[in-house]
Amino acid sequence: MAHHDGGRAADDASLTGALPLDARPARGVAAPDFHVFDTTLRDGAQREGISLSVEDKLTIARLLDEFGVGFVEGGWPGANPRDTEFFRRAAEDLTLHNAQLVAFGATRRPGGTAADDLQVQALLESGAPVITLVAKSHDRHVEQALRTTLDENLAMIRDTVSYLREQGRRVFLDCEHFFDGYRANPQYATSVVRTAYDAGAEVAVLCDTNGGMLPGQVRAVVSTVLADTGARLGIHAQDDSGCAVANTLAAVDAGATHVQCTANGYGERVGNANLFPVVAALELKYGRNVLPPGGLALMTRISHAIAETVGLAPSTHQPYVGVSAFAHKAGLHASAIKVDPDLYQHIDPELVGNTMRMLVSDMAGRATVELKARELGYDLSGDRDLLARLVERVKERELRGYTYESADASFELLLRTEITGDPLEFFRIESWRTIAESLGDGTHANEATVRLWAKGERILSTGEGNGAVNALDRALRAALERIYPPLAEIEMANYRVRLLGDSGGSGSTARVTITLRGGGSEWTTIGVGSNILAASWEALADGYTYGLSHLGVSPL
Amino acid sequence: MAHHDGGRAADDASLTGALPLDARPARGVAAPDFHVFDTTLRDGAQREGISLSVEDKLTIARLLDEFGVGFVEGGWPGANPRDTEFFRRAAEDLTLHNAQLVAFGATRRPGGTAADDLQVQALLESGAPVITLVAKSHDRHVEQALRTTLDENLAMIRDTVSYLREQGRRVFLDCEHFFDGYRANPQYATSVVRTAYDAGAEVAVLCDTNGGMLPGQVRAVVSTVLADTGARLGIHAQDDSGCAVANTLAAVDAGATHVQCTANGYGERVGNANLFPVVAALELKYGRNVLPPGGLALMTRISHAIAETVGLAPSTHQPYVGVSAFAHKAGLHASAIKVDPDLYQHIDPELVGNTMRMLVSDMAGRATVELKARELGYDLSGDRDLLARLVERVKERELRGYTYESADASFELLLRTEITGDPLEFFRIESWRTIAESLGDGTHANEATVRLWAKGERILSTGEGNGAVNALDRALRAALERIYPPLAEIEMANYRVRLLGDSGGSGSTARVTITLRGGGSEWTTIGVGSNILAASWEALADGYTYGLSHLGVSPL
Repeated sequence: MAHHDGGRAADDASLTGALPLDARPARGVAAPDFHVFDTTLRDGAQREGISLSVEDKLTIARLLDEFGVGFVEGGWPGANPRDTEFFRRAAEDLTLHNAQLVAFGATRRPGGTAADDLQVQALLESGAPVITLVAKSHDRHVEQALRTTLDENLAMIRDTVSYLREQGRRVFLDCEHFFDGYRANPQYATSVVRTAYDAGAEVAVLCDTNGGMLPGQVRAVVSTVLADTGARLGIHAQDDSGCAVANTLAAVDAGATHVQCTANGYGERVGNANLFPVVAALELKYGRNVLPPGGLALMTRISHAIAETVGLAPSTHQPYVGVSAFAHKAGLHASAIKVDPDLYQHIDPELVGNTMRMLVSDMAGRATVELKARELGYDLSGDRDLLARLVERVKERELRGYTYESADASFELLLRTEITGDPLEFFRIESWRTIAESLGDGTHANEATVRLWAKGERILSTGEGNGAVNALDRALRAALERIYPPLAEIEMANYRVRLLGDSGGSGSTARVTITLRGGGSEWTTIGVGSNILAASWEALADGYTYGLSHLGVSPL
Repeated sequence: MAHHDGGRAADDASLTGALPLDARPARGVAAPDFHVFDTTLRDGAQREGISLSVEDKLTIARLLDEFGVGFVEGGWPGANPRDTEFFRRAAEDLTLHNAQLVAFGATRRPGGTAADDLQVQALLESGAPVITLVAKSHDRHVEQALRTTLDENLAMIRDTVSYLREQGRRVFLDCEHFFDGYRANPQYATSVVRTAYDAGAEVAVLCDTNGGMLPGQVRAVVSTVLADTGARLGIHAQDDSGCAVANTLAAVDAGATHVQCTANGYGERVGNANLFPVVAALELKYGRNVLPPGGLALMTRISHAIAETVGLAPSTHQPYVGVSAFAHKAGLHASAIKVDPDLYQHIDPELVGNTMRMLVSDMAGRATVELKARELGYDLSGDRDLLARLVERVKERELRGYTYESADASFELLLRTEITGDPLEFFRIESWRTIAESLGDGTHANEATVRLWAKGERILSTGEGNGAVNALDRALRAALERIYPPLAEIEMANYRVRLLGDSGGSGSTARVTITLRGGGSEWTTIGVGSNILAASWEALADGYTYGLSHLGVSPL
């Protein structure tokens, strides 16, 4: 039953430049002898700031199934009402195509029997075909936290595993604190694996519960336990050392054939091994088919959809799936990317459903600006003077505090001005003014007045808002909407402000970025000024200018 | 010169439960034969969303030096004006106690000489005592991106290293794309290391530039190159596989004695190897002294301060230093932690300046508040009711957007109000108003009026400033200085603003923190409001109230 395929051979293979390859199953068939086990709904939900409803859990289970994991651990039925309810609803509403649903729970209580244990009964009543039992494998935890004897702990494992097997369920055993336990008492930790395996558990999962292990330690322990017990082994790694992905892969190198992970690495404290880089490494770097065909290309979308469902912004810098994961900024890199993108990417981003992006910054030279312009639909390769002028303009403005990395719309306006020699202009500002005051009753009033010219007409407009910028925005909209009715479609999606220069106090330079949306898309502009209002005004004016052009309105 | 200390022994040591230990230098002396090299200011600044001013860079360099890294790479002088300016300012204003400043740059251009190369001259002119040269070590990159011959690339390395050594500089060589290059052409990649070493480079740094390597591959390559060349080796790992920390440690296992990292893992695409978990693993898990005494205990504060300086929220789930890194939520864990916290923590959080938090029980909140009060000189241990009331107030205010982590002065005012039942009051505001306007000539005017009562007198005061907050500040000072002359000693040291809530647009909640200084110390207050001005006003008023009390002035 043990699968020791490859292991330390990985080291030697890389000496000759080859990737560590295991016996490859035929492409297009997820390996049935390798378990991709997801515990986002159980262990991932322990992350600070996550609180999942039953509906959220059903949505995430469907996403994980679509991605193609083999097992979805849904929660601990009987331990809290929401998890019990989840399994009830899953039985009615959840159709899985790739995954089996898993219920998590503890072994029977000390001194009782499995059949009489209410929590064990709740596991059966959940209807889940697979059950993960958690058991202590660290002697000190057995004695101090569980307050029972080492022998009784083994009896609890033996009884509960056999009982659930008799009831027709598949059983995996999570050996809690296995690595710390192994360090303290290797004989006892090993006997937990052996007991579970002999009683019929399909996999003994070695858990680095405190997350303090490093890959060399994990590889050595997994490899020894595999040799000593012959049991099928799994790995569950927490990320407290920042090595959970590497620890999971180290266990696979040593022969583990079951990996427990969570989407986006959600989990208690620092988190769990992140499902996505683990699966991507197995598929792309080990050449193992662990997902059904097409699954990997969904990865970026699935990752972001799960983040949205749990209510967290997708991590922009997550390996493989972050929006920055294939974003290039350095000028040095950009000139090489023009030659061959593969020179600066470890994989083709399309394999995981992501895309390459170029960022414009003062570190970037001509190549970055040229590539960025091409992305926006302008071919500048024939005009070296224009390109040089544009690079100078960008550098000079970045020195003053501008940054065009995310402000694509401001960059495009700059580009058009350099190309045509004239700025795009739908309106010309004469002046603006804001008044903010605290009223006697503790509330505040904000008022703005804008004076501008558009289509030959002078317009005076006033707006109120919950802040000075909001009031300015409303005054400007009121002035322009009458002249350019399509502007009614545009609304503000985001507003950010950052003060530059530390010594400055309230007198430092302000940088404001504003994202507007309309006509089905979003665009971001930037403003820099000696104060927040001046910077906001520049970003707002650019934002509406870009927006009107984007909506097909002709300038003055 | 090669240091092969430990290496693969790590695996065998962990079998017996021991940590991989190298020859330990005496405690309290950072090992001079091991380089902790930080590149936050150069490679870290490539992260999407980071744009550092010269002031930001100087602040970060001081923080890294305080933490105790051996080398701070400051940027690429000559490649962009801001980096050139940084080295000029550093020569005047930057005193480092632990670190040496490093300038980064390329080898001379093909076909020229090092002495005539403008970029090489810019490196010398930077005045940095250490220079990191980057050179290509992947044959395809030499031919396709650099467009020169393999031999000329070696000559460029040889010339530039010897020239800079003759000029009295220490030289490190970054071998770009080393691991991919080694896979394609191990002979050529190795010859780059050998050439640099023979020409006098102190360290050849093997770079996983595309970040696609896994630890087994890194360990094998480093170990072979070390055996083949005898050169002192370093490691520079990008995090595209999610294994940068593990890859860095794998290189150390194989004998590398120079690690290049960035604070908080900032860097291009996914990022670089994170300095903090790498250093913590070396100190706590390898038992190596790589920092000066006391450095490790500053780690959490340094990490957060750098995040604030670059303008990013500190990552809550970062290993070791995140606010969630030792936060326990699971009921299963919570009960065991009462028995012995070490059962559920891989290290004692105090070693890295972090603290354990319990997320389920308000016991934890109480302990934190009690501890913080004691820090400020108030012993609340005898008054459980007061403590409970204070915890409730803090929770309620944090829910509204306040955070007292850095705003000690606001916390102390809150504490005093709860203890005495009355807020500390030097003045009472009737109302305030600001007017900001753009003038015809492109400049702006900002004016504020404040109406307040102090010592029984009604005061009307007006101020002008370069922004609305600055004008408010001046109006308030003008009003109070006459009544409380010591206030003239107080000045603004820092002002920060963050908008809370992502979907909000300009209507979201604003959080402002203000640091004032006077009488030889600094204090920080916080304000939260529906707009930036209202929040600023609250923080300002609290700041002057705290300051006057701090300067020994009696309230009304």
